[in-house]
Amino acid sequence: MEQHLITDIVITPVAFRDLPLLNTVGVHETYALRAIVEIVTDSGVTGVGETYGDAPHLARLQLAARSLIGVDVFSIGVMRLRIIEALRGDTTVGGHGMSGMVTGSSTPDRVLSPFDVAALDIQGKVVGRPVSDLLGGAVRSEVAFSGYLFYKWAGHPGQADDAWGAAIDPAGIVAQAQRMVTDFGFSALKLKGGVFEPEEEVEAILALRKAFPGHPLRLDPNAAWTVPTSVRVGQALDGVLEYLEDPTPGLAGMAAVRREVPMPLATNMCVVSFDDVAPAVAAGSVDVILSDHHFWGGLRRSQALAGITETFDLGLSMHSNSHLGISLAAMVHLASATPNLDYACDTHWPWKDAAEDVIVPGALGFENGSVRVPTLPGLGVELDRDALARLHEQYLACGLRNRDDTGYMQRIQPDYELVSPRW
Amino acid sequence: MEQHLITDIVITPVAFRDLPLLNTVGVHETYALRAIVEIVTDSGVTGVGETYGDAPHLARLQLAARSLIGVDVFSIGVMRLRIIEALRGDTTVGGHGMSGMVTGSSTPDRVLSPFDVAALDIQGKVVGRPVSDLLGGAVRSEVAFSGYLFYKWAGHPGQADDAWGAAIDPAGIVAQAQRMVTDFGFSALKLKGGVFEPEEEVEAILALRKAFPGHPLRLDPNAAWTVPTSVRVGQALDGVLEYLEDPTPGLAGMAAVRREVPMPLATNMCVVSFDDVAPAVAAGSVDVILSDHHFWGGLRRSQALAGITETFDLGLSMHSNSHLGISLAAMVHLASATPNLDYACDTHWPWKDAAEDVIVPGALGFENGSVRVPTLPGLGVELDRDALARLHEQYLACGLRNRDDTGYMQRIQPDYELVSPRW
Repeated sequence: MEQHLITDIVITPVAFRDLPLLNTVGVHETYALRAIVEIVTDSGVTGVGETYGDAPHLARLQLAARSLIGVDVFSIGVMRLRIIEALRGDTTVGGHGMSGMVTGSSTPDRVLSPFDVAALDIQGKVVGRPVSDLLGGAVRSEVAFSGYLFYKWAGHPGQADDAWGAAIDPAGIVAQAQRMVTDFGFSALKLKGGVFEPEEEVEAILALRKAFPGHPLRLDPNAAWTVPTSVRVGQALDGVLEYLEDPTPGLAGMAAVRREVPMPLATNMCVVSFDDVAPAVAAGSVDVILSDHHFWGGLRRSQALAGITETFDLGLSMHSNSHLGISLAAMVHLASATPNLDYACDTHWPWKDAAEDVIVPGALGFENGSVRVPTLPGLGVELDRDALARLHEQYLACGLRNRDDTGYMQRIQPDYELVSPRW
Repeated sequence: MEQHLITDIVITPVAFRDLPLLNTVGVHETYALRAIVEIVTDSGVTGVGETYGDAPHLARLQLAARSLIGVDVFSIGVMRLRIIEALRGDTTVGGHGMSGMVTGSSTPDRVLSPFDVAALDIQGKVVGRPVSDLLGGAVRSEVAFSGYLFYKWAGHPGQADDAWGAAIDPAGIVAQAQRMVTDFGFSALKLKGGVFEPEEEVEAILALRKAFPGHPLRLDPNAAWTVPTSVRVGQALDGVLEYLEDPTPGLAGMAAVRREVPMPLATNMCVVSFDDVAPAVAAGSVDVILSDHHFWGGLRRSQALAGITETFDLGLSMHSNSHLGISLAAMVHLASATPNLDYACDTHWPWKDAAEDVIVPGALGFENGSVRVPTLPGLGVELDRDALARLHEQYLACGLRNRDDTGYMQRIQPDYELVSPRW
């Protein structure tokens, strides 16, 4: 049996341009950070993964990488045990990659994720099959995504307006949605809320409902609301939302809201690790869990989550951060091989400058809001080393080392306060 | 990408000699029935699986097999959906392969299992890796089993005594355990109870404890006891049992026992399908679930169960029926790639005539109670077509078409009654 032992792991932080997207903890900075993980094997086959680029996370990735030298890429279980062991010596804090919005995820799972993806990429290349086949096989040939709408400024302060322009009221959100649906074909829409007074955001959702009568709609205020506010909004949007995402913080608060609102409650904030599942089930906190292979331990562990949600009669959707093409490929393979992941997945893809990525263009594209599952061996994407070098240079030049939506907002609006729940 | 499409599936019922092992529903008949499933692909690569041989199950396997023609063996998710669809037209009843002791398992999962195993066998052969690698990789190179002790008669009525002789009291059980530990090296022991008065079985366990002071001990009366009897026995065996398995029927009964006994409660009777898990968790019925890929939908679905037990802080062990080498290989691969399957697994292996199997001898052997995980591609076992033909002839000749421990007992002891709970 030919083994494929890990001989080297290269971790490259990159930065790509981001737009001033607003959320309840602040605003996206001028660049988004990611780390590209490349595993090199003794057989010469290489594979790639993508994860957060925050400095403490990078340090943990390096710690983990050292522990994986000599491991066979088919031994993902062993890789996980090695990483758990390696992180026992970890003294870094913070750097969860999500600007404080998700902090309770499992550190070993968050660190394992890009290595799991890269190992599966190599496995697929070695055996000549797409990653979806290593996950039980695709049950759908394309994966549907939702159009992810954000309140935003016209441009970063001090810069020219960007191509999307401002969206700070219902009309702006509807215009943004119209462009996104026209350009990408999305058949579901999600609004990132928690930015303005809840009533204004209700108005935006009602405007979307009017403009897109057939599109499932979702609203995600990132736990910006108290329980009473959440109940009020939930009841006001009866019959309008496909699901309401993280209206309020914590399992108990979510359970209280869930008893009083008519629509399903979804989360990627109060159930973000395997440790959260049993308490959430016991409390009756949520109806839908948004998976995310970046913090649920990679693709194989995300399938374990899918087994759990199916078994406990919970819905399963997919969360997204600002990401590049490697993550999009991984998300598509995972979703294609997960029969019960039947909500349209989130993606920040439209917000990324199409000219910026670390993969050779052309492997992934949107048609009717969906991405066709790559059928080439592995992830089906190829690292573009020149592009990777450019985005790494950009990382070095931009000076950002951690995602900090709140700090950026406070530099622009010194009186801005981080409050949760805000209303 | 080279596909490996299913062109034919051959299902061969076989019978192999069994001994008069006693349980609470009767006694094992002279032959145990199994079905050998062989998948043939257009590339010429074949794979094998093993399952129950009861007639209604055979009919369902045939129904399922027809639906799988043309499917790629890497598409296990599609295979599952096809089988669910094919079984919509199923009107057969019964034939669960476990003589009435487990009837609530999922029919699609029970039918999927041998096809999942055979498909993984082919995948492994095609890619040149052991099945364990397709399940995330082995985290242990050998899998520990428990010595499975049975009350038994000296021989089948009307036949000469078998090589094991009688075991109908504590001394007989201890002697049986001594031989089994000597021959196989098991370092854990399980007694199949529910046969004699509970106090007699407590005596047997205490005799085992005295003879094997360092061996973890388990007792499994197959739900033969009421809640008060279960509590009495459980309290009498405080500090003696590793776990008590299925003392009483049903989730509510198990939960009531669990509140009153000091040791973990295990089950392969009240949690036998994914549908049972949420109610069991809610009721607090069990501490340990015995997995069994034959009724949990094959190896990939059994790993989903492992993810559930890990997440809900439940123990995970493994159940066994009378089986041949294909199932042993599948069990070993699964257990090796499931980090939290850390109890010694059950196996009926010692009760099988070593000369009878459907695989070429030598691939699997016990040393210190453990089986080394095969490292050859696929399951690592090879179908012995002459042996398969012999066991199929034996199936045709023996006349048995369903496992029926109760009917056999009643032919021997006409006044035998099936009662649950019995004490």
